[in-house]
Amino acid sequence: MFTLGVSDHIMIAHSFTDPFFGPAQRLHGATCAIDLEVRAPTLGPHHVVMDIGALRALLRRLLDELDYRNLDDHPAFAARSSSTERIAEHLAQGAAAAIAGLSVDARPVAGASVRVVVRESPVAYAAYERAV
Amino acid sequence: MFTLGVSDHIMIAHSFTDPFFGPAQRLHGATCAIDLEVRAPTLGPHHVVMDIGALRALLRRLLDELDYRNLDDHPAFAARSSSTERIAEHLAQGAAAAIAGLSVDARPVAGASVRVVVRESPVAYAAYERAV
Amino acid sequence: MFTLGVSDHIMIAHSFTDPFFGPAQRLHGATCAIDLEVRAPTLGPHHVVMDIGALRALLRRLLDELDYRNLDDHPAFAARSSSTERIAEHLAQGAAAAIAGLSVDARPVAGASVRVVVRESPVAYAAYERAV
Amino acid sequence: MFTLGVSDHIMIAHSFTDPFFGPAQRLHGATCAIDLEVRAPTLGPHHVVMDIGALRALLRRLLDELDYRNLDDHPAFAARSSSTERIAEHLAQGAAAAIAGLSVDARPVAGASVRVVVRESPVAYAAYERAV
Amino acid sequence: MFTLGVSDHIMIAHSFTDPFFGPAQRLHGATCAIDLEVRAPTLGPHHVVMDIGALRALLRRLLDELDYRNLDDHPAFAARSSSTERIAEHLAQGAAAAIAGLSVDARPVAGASVRVVVRESPVAYAAYERAV
Amino acid sequence: MFTLGVSDHIMIAHSFTDPFFGPAQRLHGATCAIDLEVRAPTLGPHHVVMDIGALRALLRRLLDELDYRNLDDHPAFAARSSSTERIAEHLAQGAAAAIAGLSVDARPVAGASVRVVVRESPVAYAAYERAV
Repeated sequence: MFTLGVSDHIMIAHSFTDPFFGPAQRLHGATCAIDLEVRAPTLGPHHVVMDIGALRALLRRLLDELDYRNLDDHPAFAARSSSTERIAEHLAQGAAAAIAGLSVDARPVAGASVRVVVRESPVAYAAYERAV
Repeated sequence: MFTLGVSDHIMIAHSFTDPFFGPAQRLHGATCAIDLEVRAPTLGPHHVVMDIGALRALLRRLLDELDYRNLDDHPAFAARSSSTERIAEHLAQGAAAAIAGLSVDARPVAGASVRVVVRESPVAYAAYERAV
Repeated sequence: MFTLGVSDHIMIAHSFTDPFFGPAQRLHGATCAIDLEVRAPTLGPHHVVMDIGALRALLRRLLDELDYRNLDDHPAFAARSSSTERIAEHLAQGAAAAIAGLSVDARPVAGASVRVVVRESPVAYAAYERAV
Repeated sequence: MFTLGVSDHIMIAHSFTDPFFGPAQRLHGATCAIDLEVRAPTLGPHHVVMDIGALRALLRRLLDELDYRNLDDHPAFAARSSSTERIAEHLAQGAAAAIAGLSVDARPVAGASVRVVVRESPVAYAAYERAV
Repeated sequence: MFTLGVSDHIMIAHSFTDPFFGPAQRLHGATCAIDLEVRAPTLGPHHVVMDIGALRALLRRLLDELDYRNLDDHPAFAARSSSTERIAEHLAQGAAAAIAGLSVDARPVAGASVRVVVRESPVAYAAYERAV
Repeated sequence: MFTLGVSDHIMIAHSFTDPFFGPAQRLHGATCAIDLEVRAPTLGPHHVVMDIGALRALLRRLLDELDYRNLDDHPAFAARSSSTERIAEHLAQGAAAAIAGLSVDARPVAGASVRVVVRESPVAYAAYERAV
């Protein structure tokens, strides 16, 4: 099994209504360092999982919708639910859809999956993985 | 599949009786940087795998039993067997038991697993994973 | 010359009114990884620059005033001026004052200085240094 | 399941003939930071997956064949196909063969697998895993 | 004294004619992780050392002349002298000249200096600093 | 001003008699990640501060006297005074002496200095610098 991974980051504000979150109910923010991984059982004709430049651009497009924003106002996180897990899930869903929409010769071979890791601080991270 | 991870560290002394370990038979030590990961197929009602504050406190309690100690004297590592693999296993066993003992609304959904990664130097690490 | 350094982090929201800041005029946020360094020409009687536990607690107290907050509402950053440089300066001023206020046997020897480094993303950081 | 990991690095030159690679068709290079992981369901009699010193030496021998070289001239990467994925696969194949060739008491228990991660820059990595 | 730092990287090939360099006489390569720091005694009217976006773009322009290239063919490193120290010096000279050429309101206050750090592997780095 | 830096690590045990150190009075240990930096105003005839291979070997020789040892028994740290600051000082004194003892064409130009940084955990480090 092969993995190709690319990294980028976003800087977002958010808060939580749920008292469960303690001090994180206050409006605060995070730099989220993002890893987007694509796994595939074999490589394509170019000896890669997929074009790394295309994968970096795909990740950047997904991140542009969140970067330098207050996620409390973002429709993807209704009811102020932008936990690190939900950010990872949102990006992985977007990445899977975008990869599935690529032309046959640009996308990974059948059986691929994606994983997004979101590191929000030196001591906390979350991830979500799913099939493409 | 979702993952939530938290990080902390301990500073321990230890040695090995087994000649297999070469210079590590001498009393030495390590800073072990620890990642504790909980994986779960879905999120709970708060949009998280589990409360990250509770998970960090749970990890800290497990680490307090090892931190600033000589593991040669610790009952969990009889016969001076505190290899990095055994430290990871010990912490993952403790984490799984502690998580299983949480109240239903505090613990991850059914099907969760834990993974502990122990990085003992810039060039060496070990991990252990098991079901909760 | 000796240096002692400790590290911690904060998660803050902020924005800028000045059009100079482009997309950072929008409300966003950052995880700021903080290094606080104390430099001193010699060590004290305990063979250290100062007590590392005291230094970590001192940094934590300074950070608690900023952590999980929107810096746009913080009096230290009037007119929404919480640039990374200003955050570093604010923390270094606070650290210098706190260290100068320690008892003689708890503070570093004469001639000490402090430096605060604030890393706001994998590609950007700022620092400020001054005498104690 | 246990994992033991060791890390090292190589400094290589390479290029690609395939126009698919854009500017990477030009002769350039990379520092590849390598993680070699061995996974095994149980530990051996020494409380480890395998001897970490032996594993580091095994990785170093594999890397010596690539280090400080132009991979365009290396027989393992015919037709200038030394993508990061192919470097990871080449090293994992070599590691699996070397581990399988160890004496029974030096190798991991039955059911082991290997994984090689190659980080070529702060924003790109690839991996390959297979059974031993 | 304030510091503003930005980070980026290049992937280059090179070799050395001088037998002093041992195996590095062979054509090989490196990923050079670059930090460009600007130090200034005070901040400008925008509460920053200089515009971080402008500084990142300035660094990227300097790096574009080296990235994905064989430095043995680059006029800045005659006689195959592209040591890590020389790469740092080359970039710092370029950065100082570019900053000095900015309009008065875009450049740092008088008394500024630049420092470039080049990390070529997990175990080696070089730096060069000079006045603007 | 040029800097050349190399990195390595040691794994040591130690403890402190001084009640000042709290829980660190207990026998514990640390992985110390070490940076050794040599600064020089100009480069030598090979376009480097000094031979990086020689510098790595010099650091390794200094570290071999401490690695896999209990510093409580080491003559360099009488009265169990092996604070991180004292470890940095000890290594910098050794490095300065070793560099001063090199032949004229192997050592840095006049005016060189050394700096040793010792990172003992993700949240603590110390350094010492002096002239060669």
